[in-house]
Amino acid sequence: MTALGAALRAAHLDALLITSLPNIRYLTGFSGSSAIVVASDRDLLFVTDFRYATQVHEEVGDMARVAIEPQSLWNGVWRQMTDMTGVAVVGFESAHLVHRDFERLLNAGARWQWRATTDVVETLREQKDSGEIASITDAARVAERALERMLTEVRAGLTELEIAGALERALRDEGSSGFPFETIVASGERSALPHARAADRPVRAGDFLLIDFGAIVDGYCSDITRTVVVGRATQEQHDVHEIVRTANERASSLVHAGMSGKDADALARRYIEERGLGEAFGHSLGHGIGIEVHEAPRLARTTEAVLPERAVVTIEPGVYRAGWGGVRIEDDVVLGRDSATVLTNFSRELLEVG
Amino acid sequence: MTALGAALRAAHLDALLITSLPNIRYLTGFSGSSAIVVASDRDLLFVTDFRYATQVHEEVGDMARVAIEPQSLWNGVWRQMTDMTGVAVVGFESAHLVHRDFERLLNAGARWQWRATTDVVETLREQKDSGEIASITDAARVAERALERMLTEVRAGLTELEIAGALERALRDEGSSGFPFETIVASGERSALPHARAADRPVRAGDFLLIDFGAIVDGYCSDITRTVVVGRATQEQHDVHEIVRTANERASSLVHAGMSGKDADALARRYIEERGLGEAFGHSLGHGIGIEVHEAPRLARTTEAVLPERAVVTIEPGVYRAGWGGVRIEDDVVLGRDSATVLTNFSRELLEVG
Repeated sequence: MTALGAALRAAHLDALLITSLPNIRYLTGFSGSSAIVVASDRDLLFVTDFRYATQVHEEVGDMARVAIEPQSLWNGVWRQMTDMTGVAVVGFESAHLVHRDFERLLNAGARWQWRATTDVVETLREQKDSGEIASITDAARVAERALERMLTEVRAGLTELEIAGALERALRDEGSSGFPFETIVASGERSALPHARAADRPVRAGDFLLIDFGAIVDGYCSDITRTVVVGRATQEQHDVHEIVRTANERASSLVHAGMSGKDADALARRYIEERGLGEAFGHSLGHGIGIEVHEAPRLARTTEAVLPERAVVTIEPGVYRAGWGGVRIEDDVVLGRDSATVLTNFSRELLEVG
Repeated sequence: MTALGAALRAAHLDALLITSLPNIRYLTGFSGSSAIVVASDRDLLFVTDFRYATQVHEEVGDMARVAIEPQSLWNGVWRQMTDMTGVAVVGFESAHLVHRDFERLLNAGARWQWRATTDVVETLREQKDSGEIASITDAARVAERALERMLTEVRAGLTELEIAGALERALRDEGSSGFPFETIVASGERSALPHARAADRPVRAGDFLLIDFGAIVDGYCSDITRTVVVGRATQEQHDVHEIVRTANERASSLVHAGMSGKDADALARRYIEERGLGEAFGHSLGHGIGIEVHEAPRLARTTEAVLPERAVVTIEPGVYRAGWGGVRIEDDVVLGRDSATVLTNFSRELLEVG
């Protein structure tokens, strides 16, 4: 709470109304799906519903003043806020409060002065502490062990859905508490779609198989991509894979805190451009991971902001050719002052499986 | 689009800005994670980003005027809206537009008159057509087959996570394109937590095992819960299970369109209250399912609204005793004028497994 207290003072706020569940989880440890928090320098008010009466006790304990609301959480918010002394100017999360609830602030909450804020808690979340880095590292290990088990099962004729199922089961067996995002298993020409879900397409010999997935350990995510070939790879597949691998390794070995998101993105992009494939790398290099699988900071062509120390970010260059296929290789790294530590050590060679 | 056109006219709107992805999916078939739609009686404008260039073509085709935006989707919205003739008063979705984007309407979108709306598309989604009911029925079949396979694997000593993994893999093998919500596998005293995730607790002989999960087929969800016992059930477990089963079957056989959500809820609640366990049934009886696993209508103590024909809803009474365990039995039903058709036919007997 000290860091949040300082952020509130810097923003001239007496308190902050927090409606983002990942931000609530960061500040309180609560992992449920229904809560509103009001945080001041001295007080932490926590409102949830009856379904979480037991869980909030275990997860939040006595770090907050907890109210269990039978109906609308907002009733509990107004009642509890009335008891807070010295609170007049209150921030709200402009990116996490829907218009309908914003209207509540102007009506039921009219006795307070409301200020739109963005990224107050998100900024605190960018720099991980050692416990958070340990959790993400564990989530990376779980993902790698699951991928290893799954790859032994891949063979031509299985559908992408069946392969996703094998991977997800292995993730559970290795202890993942959930899936940070919908597993991407994209084969053949579908590997050229940067956001393909698994489908009922059977994989064929000679296909690229792009696998993008993660694990969750203690509420923290890993996010990893490998692209393999089912059966024998062609020279062209080797060539494209090698370009992406080199781009990935250059970026991972050169990225560090203190550079802009834009300069980080260029570490991989410039190399891919030099190889004549700039147009085929249509997305940005990476993003922060933590409680959410997409969080600050961004590593993108348009990001002027400087990367902070101890941010954990993905490094995920890709090359996609519509109708042919695509390759992406994604690792998770912790940013240090002069270099980065790679958390995902699964082989980046072009594996031929099945 | 005719039904939406009528809804717009009734609300005195020339067009509606749609930012809810499930609503966009309902109107256009688009299944990606980034899009904004503006719908008038004559026009459907669709803005997404480059990652979905191929997918939007396949899913939306030429039913909409599609723009691919390299940066902010909002740039595309303003540019396309400028070309719409006769559009002055535009609704937006108050429950699905965050404050930050609401500010964009007031600034970059200042040439239009904006009106807050709620539930315009959600109301259309309540009444399913035969294709939608067929998809939900398929999703129910997939879930039942997966549950059957998984139950043959359950034995004391497996963790809840491992059991969740077995179930999720079976869902994939049966063709589920994803998981509509985080699988709940809650054993022993954890079965008393209505929203427990799977954890690394090993299940023990004599435990209740509560399994709440679903499948997705063609974008439509099923949602089913069964509670079994690992090994031999005690008389007390039988008694509580029997009360919940009777409440479930009474509600399923008596619920129909035309009754209020409140009266539907009472079908199960009154019976559980008569058995002296009213306090132990802490949540509402059910909710609509479709593109989302929680959608309109609601079957709850406070819902005065009348249930429409062809809504698909869950019937899920439960009894929970902290420290002992809980039982929930959940089915999916389609509401007809005088009765309901139950889509989930998996046995409601108290199964002893492992």
